[in-house]
Amino acid sequence: SSVSTPIRATLFPGDGIGPEIANSVKQIFQAAEAPIEWEEHHVGTEVDPRTQSFLTWESLESVRRNKVGLKGPMATPIGKGHRSLNLTLRKELNLYANVRPCYSLSGYKTRYDNVDLITIRENTEGEYSGLEHQVVRGVVESIKIITRQASIRVAEYAFHYAKAHGRKTVSAIHKANIMQKTDGLFLKCCREVAEKYPEITYEEVVIDNCCMMLVKNPALFDVLVMPNLYGDIISDLCAGLIGGLGLTPSINIGGGGIALAEAVHGSAPDIAGKNLANPTALLLSSVSMLRHLDLHDNADRIQNAILNTIAEGKYRTADLGGVSKTTEFTKAIIDHL
Amino acid sequence: SSVSTPIRATLFPGDGIGPEIANSVKQIFQAAEAPIEWEEHHVGTEVDPRTQSFLTWESLESVRRNKVGLKGPMATPIGKGHRSLNLTLRKELNLYANVRPCYSLSGYKTRYDNVDLITIRENTEGEYSGLEHQVVRGVVESIKIITRQASIRVAEYAFHYAKAHGRKTVSAIHKANIMQKTDGLFLKCCREVAEKYPEITYEEVVIDNCCMMLVKNPALFDVLVMPNLYGDIISDLCAGLIGGLGLTPSINIGGGGIALAEAVHGSAPDIAGKNLANPTALLLSSVSMLRHLDLHDNADRIQNAILNTIAEGKYRTADLGGVSKTTEFTKAIIDHL
Ligand SMILES: CC(C)[C@H](C(=O)O)[C@@H](O)C(=O)O
Ligand SMILES: CC(C)[C@H](C(=O)O)[C@@H](O)C(=O)O
Repeated sequence: SSVSTPIRATLFPGDGIGPEIANSVKQIFQAAEAPIEWEEHHVGTEVDPRTQSFLTWESLESVRRNKVGLKGPMATPIGKGHRSLNLTLRKELNLYANVRPCYSLSGYKTRYDNVDLITIRENTEGEYSGLEHQVVRGVVESIKIITRQASIRVAEYAFHYAKAHGRKTVSAIHKANIMQKTDGLFLKCCREVAEKYPEITYEEVVIDNCCMMLVKNPALFDVLVMPNLYGDIISDLCAGLIGGLGLTPSINIGGGGIALAEAVHGSAPDIAGKNLANPTALLLSSVSMLRHLDLHDNADRIQNAILNTIAEGKYRTADLGGVSKTTEFTKAIIDHL
Repeated sequence: SSVSTPIRATLFPGDGIGPEIANSVKQIFQAAEAPIEWEEHHVGTEVDPRTQSFLTWESLESVRRNKVGLKGPMATPIGKGHRSLNLTLRKELNLYANVRPCYSLSGYKTRYDNVDLITIRENTEGEYSGLEHQVVRGVVESIKIITRQASIRVAEYAFHYAKAHGRKTVSAIHKANIMQKTDGLFLKCCREVAEKYPEITYEEVVIDNCCMMLVKNPALFDVLVMPNLYGDIISDLCAGLIGGLGLTPSINIGGGGIALAEAVHGSAPDIAGKNLANPTALLLSSVSMLRHLDLHDNADRIQNAILNTIAEGKYRTADLGGVSKTTEFTKAIIDHL
């Protein structure tokens, strides 16, 4: 029989518009008969001492146990004495690679119609070390850490991904002409891994030049791998090329085979609860989650329904200049399944 | 009489295409009767121990004496035991602010027709401190330094520039949500200076979001001020929006009133000596130099001739898809004076 045991996945609907767009995912998965059983977790109302954040220990345990999850936007509550929700997840689950596919959507026109690239961001160290201090009054420093271990790991993921997805080129993005030791070590690790993938072209591009080339001709790029901050910058730049963070998926790869897909846009409290949110980023992230689980048939079916609905252009949420409600757009996708 | 004593300015023609595009500037200045007397200096053939680079001490003394200069592209010779020419100039002349106007050129179509912004980059510290070391095998760090002194200085320059040029908004670009101490100090300094300019709107934009907004709608920005590496990245990104580094001027502001205008593109050795180079970036940089000297009539006359020649579209160098020689394009500009 084709009926298989469903795979349990943790779902963090998140805050603001999170629950509405998570509903969209749940409905579409049900209609598509995707073999996922959601285990839903919510951000706590007080700081959990074991996570030092508003994330509950149970919710992290759920991801560790299921090894796969999907996360909506989570606004970090303001105040002291706790850690950012996003940074806590990265740290606690050792989410070492942030993978962001970015491609032009037919039906939603921007200045670019030829974007098709993947940014792979080292997600645990670099400029995000948290090591900062005042040297003397008026002089502060922050420390960027690059390790061989984390650089090899993310480079290996990038080449593995390129090969598995039939990609041709991996570009390592750096500023090793200035940061010779840190970015130099990052490049050295990428070169080492590149040697093991003779079928993939490897190149190195300085970050300033990369950003200039991206806005001139994004079709020059395929898979990009880079240290943390450059990845933060370039993945958002690339999202801008095709319309913004509301349209781009993201998945974080962690230690021990964990993967947490997430919509990286904000929680948009101004439109929360009004049935106005665009669920596309979370939906495409859920597709990335299915692909990570090698459920390519389910992924294709759902992705095609999303892309065809956007291409048709009949149902479009307000952020894309349309008048459709979240639920109408969701229903249209279900009709396209 | 309207004849005034000419102002002496140092000219570094530079390498590769440098001499050809510098000739273009010299001819146009002569035809426009701009009151500049060039004092020409060339990169040395061996390392000068006083500069630890191929720049001669005399050439630096020339800029210090004249307080103003223009620089073509300079490829740093490969090898050890000397410093990069660009970094040496920044350091020795204390060039603390790199100012890059960037605007859409009518006549040269890109995806954007509404760019009109200025990036002002802190040019002496930040990620360019040169402080790097290996902590243990496989673990390296580099140190980003932000000082109150350099941050106030560049913020003051940015607001002064905004006011003098009738600009409305200064945006400080940062990642203070992650680098709270370093970028936090930078923002604190910008806020302090902003208080003294109530007529200028001040805002703060996180670098990843800034890059996304720039590619979606560059008209959102006016004057941007930021730490060194962000300035390196964003100024090149912005140049890409209007066609690339061959079209954008740059001027470095230094201690003691020094200003060194420069073309920031490469020396293009492949086309050097072939009368194919586009002199636009160096020409527009020379216009920035004239404005720095408050020679606005001369600046307007030359800038209009350049922009009108480009807008007319009859003479265009190979990099812009045309067939004109450097000298033909230069002659066309002279005819437009
Ligand atoms: C919110 C912020 C800390 C975060 C980051 O800088 O990583 C965000 O920009 C992202 O890309 O997920
Ligand atoms: C060549 C390099 C050191 C330099 C920099 O990073 O500053 C260049 O990119 C620039 O912007 O002038």
